Amino acid sequence: MCAQLLSTKPYKGTRDFYPDDMRVRNWFFGKIREALEVAAFEEYNGPMLESLELYAAKSGEEIATKQTYNFLDRADRSLAIRPEMTPTVARMVAGKINELSFPLRWFSIPNMYRYEATQRGRLREFWQLNVDVFGCDTYEADLEVIVSAIRIMKAFGADESMFTVRINNRRFFNDVIAAITGKDAEGARLVSKVVDRKNKVSRESYEKDMTELGLDADKIAKIDALYTMSVDEATALCPDSVGSGELLDLFRALRTLELDKYCVFDFGIIRGLDYYTGTVFEVFDNAPENNRAMFGGGRYDNLVGLFVKNAKVSGVGYGMGDVTLENFLVTHDLIPDLYKVERKVLVTRFDDVPYTEYMKLTDKLQSLGVTSALFMGAKKFGKQIDYAVKGHYSHIAIMGSSELERGVVKIKDLEAREECEVSLDALGEYFAK
Amino acid sequence: MCAQLLSTKPYKGTRDFYPDDMRVRNWFFGKIREALEVAAFEEYNGPMLESLELYAAKSGEEIATKQTYNFLDRADRSLAIRPEMTPTVARMVAGKINELSFPLRWFSIPNMYRYEATQRGRLREFWQLNVDVFGCDTYEADLEVIVSAIRIMKAFGADESMFTVRINNRRFFNDVIAAITGKDAEGARLVSKVVDRKNKVSRESYEKDMTELGLDADKIAKIDALYTMSVDEATALCPDSVGSGELLDLFRALRTLELDKYCVFDFGIIRGLDYYTGTVFEVFDNAPENNRAMFGGGRYDNLVGLFVKNAKVSGVGYGMGDVTLENFLVTHDLIPDLYKVERKVLVTRFDDVPYTEYMKLTDKLQSLGVTSALFMGAKKFGKQIDYAVKGHYSHIAIMGSSELERGVVKIKDLEAREECEVSLDALGEYFAK
Repeated sequence: MCAQLLSTKPYKGTRDFYPDDMRVRNWFFGKIREALEVAAFEEYNGPMLESLELYAAKSGEEIATKQTYNFLDRADRSLAIRPEMTPTVARMVAGKINELSFPLRWFSIPNMYRYEATQRGRLREFWQLNVDVFGCDTYEADLEVIVSAIRIMKAFGADESMFTVRINNRRFFNDVIAAITGKDAEGARLVSKVVDRKNKVSRESYEKDMTELGLDADKIAKIDALYTMSVDEATALCPDSVGSGELLDLFRALRTLELDKYCVFDFGIIRGLDYYTGTVFEVFDNAPENNRAMFGGGRYDNLVGLFVKNAKVSGVGYGMGDVTLENFLVTHDLIPDLYKVERKVLVTRFDDVPYTEYMKLTDKLQSLGVTSALFMGAKKFGKQIDYAVKGHYSHIAIMGSSELERGVVKIKDLEAREECEVSLDALGEYFAK
Repeated sequence: MCAQLLSTKPYKGTRDFYPDDMRVRNWFFGKIREALEVAAFEEYNGPMLESLELYAAKSGEEIATKQTYNFLDRADRSLAIRPEMTPTVARMVAGKINELSFPLRWFSIPNMYRYEATQRGRLREFWQLNVDVFGCDTYEADLEVIVSAIRIMKAFGADESMFTVRINNRRFFNDVIAAITGKDAEGARLVSKVVDRKNKVSRESYEKDMTELGLDADKIAKIDALYTMSVDEATALCPDSVGSGELLDLFRALRTLELDKYCVFDFGIIRGLDYYTGTVFEVFDNAPENNRAMFGGGRYDNLVGLFVKNAKVSGVGYGMGDVTLENFLVTHDLIPDLYKVERKVLVTRFDDVPYTEYMKLTDKLQSLGVTSALFMGAKKFGKQIDYAVKGHYSHIAIMGSSELERGVVKIKDLEAREECEVSLDALGEYFAK
């Protein structure tokens, strides 16, 4: 009978969402949905559990083997809690490849699990917005995806001083390396690998690797120069590259939409060398204390190859973690006090008025669409006020026997500390203000 | 290179939510949120993974040991994917017991997993609405909870011909059994156990068990009579029972709110004998082909006992599965064709108008809040129309060079097959209709 008490802490790296937290999360996801849905992106979702082989085949080695929660079910099926969404959506697209109307504009906000050492911005359970266009091979899809990211940031009130979309193109990247070095595809690929590691190694080590591949100081300097070039300067180095054309089209379209102020060409954006095949981009937080990529994405080929023979569906998209985005919003003070903008009425009560009268009043307020609740229990008026304040009610309704007789109710605005008497018939009008 | 193709099927008992399905689910949960939030219920959520001991201690034997997906993490912590929400919410309430302002009106719509043989209405992954009032010991909380369930059903367009809330009270149940049998608490408890099994055994077996407990035919008949009694008749048998008072108060309040037409007293509603302590209820589907309890709940004591010493928090609530509710809505034809009520515009394109003009038009429509997309790719007009129809677009926008010159656009309503010319400046007005 004296069993040990259980801990009230959630499992390491996971979060409890109390109403205060959930309210922010719902506001957060609501803004994202709104920004995407108006551009005809459609939401989908899939199961939390998938067969482990899906990740073994599709995700990187590290994710599949080290970071995935996996186990056997009672029928010895090898399962995993999803660590990312792309394998699921690839499976879904493949599963209805003959029914779906391509191109698809799809998004999802799934929760997922990764077994990681927890730190700022990295939890074991997190939500990740996934936005993709499937089945469109031209830059138009790249544009839609990048525009959607900017629209989401703008929906939160972020402006060009707060974030920057850094854009590159993998086709251009390969072609310009080949053009500068004069190497064939395989030779250029080896140089690309060194360039990809540039920021991770010392300058000496970088130059040594480049020299070993036969590049002289002039060629190394030409590649260095790319990092500070505008998109026009850079693409002028290999004007015939398909990637150059895509970059130019993309930046021209961003100018037309007056979104170019959020975007910059950046030769340093490469992302996974073996995965992306065209446009790549990363969205940076401009805050000096947090100046790094928050999320990114790009174009990749052949989404459904693991599931369907001889079918090609390209994709372009990005994944944005909720923790990263929330850190950004907090840093830039972009989360409003939601309690101040929402209205909620507590109907208080006295003993000399029948309880049913209060029930009717609360019911009336609710039917008018006014969020409201009747105080439960029989406590003194002061305690009822305390409850209203602690529960973030913006207003209280007071109806004593004299108000009841006259068919009125006193409405007190707890924030403004103002009180006024409203006839029961005029409540709708009062709260429509 | 010739690897076997992966299956596109989701894991057994789980569902893929393609946009068509997700649209219904979002509509579904949106209605529920709306109905609850206007009554000041607040949403919360918790992690998908919890420590297994939480369920071993709190859930029934069957759920914890046979139906739960559980495994060890890499640090040998014993984890479970949540099979129900009550242990999580109990942990959360206990964790902030000194900060929260009771009574709490809380709800959540978590997904959860149970390892079950799949059948109609039973899947391995499902969502379950949990609605509870915590920390109010009077019938007022029972009322709020039952009213919320009715409001949700009404929000979906269900009327009293489609569903019935069957209500009983466990305190009344115990007291009336004691009053009829003349037994003490322990003796009445033994009779209760037989009564609880009444519908699961033959009439002969039931009477035999009752006789063995010393009940004669008259007493058995008196208990039988309870099943067809009104709440007034039944409670008259033990007018001093606290449970009788609660039942009478509850039904009186339901009459005041004009919700009594959805409700009926039913002595046959008992639910888990060891768990519920006051009001119990079940919501039945009235359809003859599916006449059974869809969901139910009731009052229970001491939510937080496993976590906090010497603290008592009572609860009253229910859990409603998404699959069950969806079956109900389908049976009664209550799911509207969402594509018919939503507006979505496809901006079509011709080669002789610059692409940037179409981008600007799409951008304008979106900024007016009109869900719209620009056709991606360069296909013939007929193909663009096909894409619009297949993608459930309600309207298409047509702007050839002659329209562009005159600053107008043709808007075609695909459902009504009507077309009209709208000036670019009047698009807001046109779509405000």
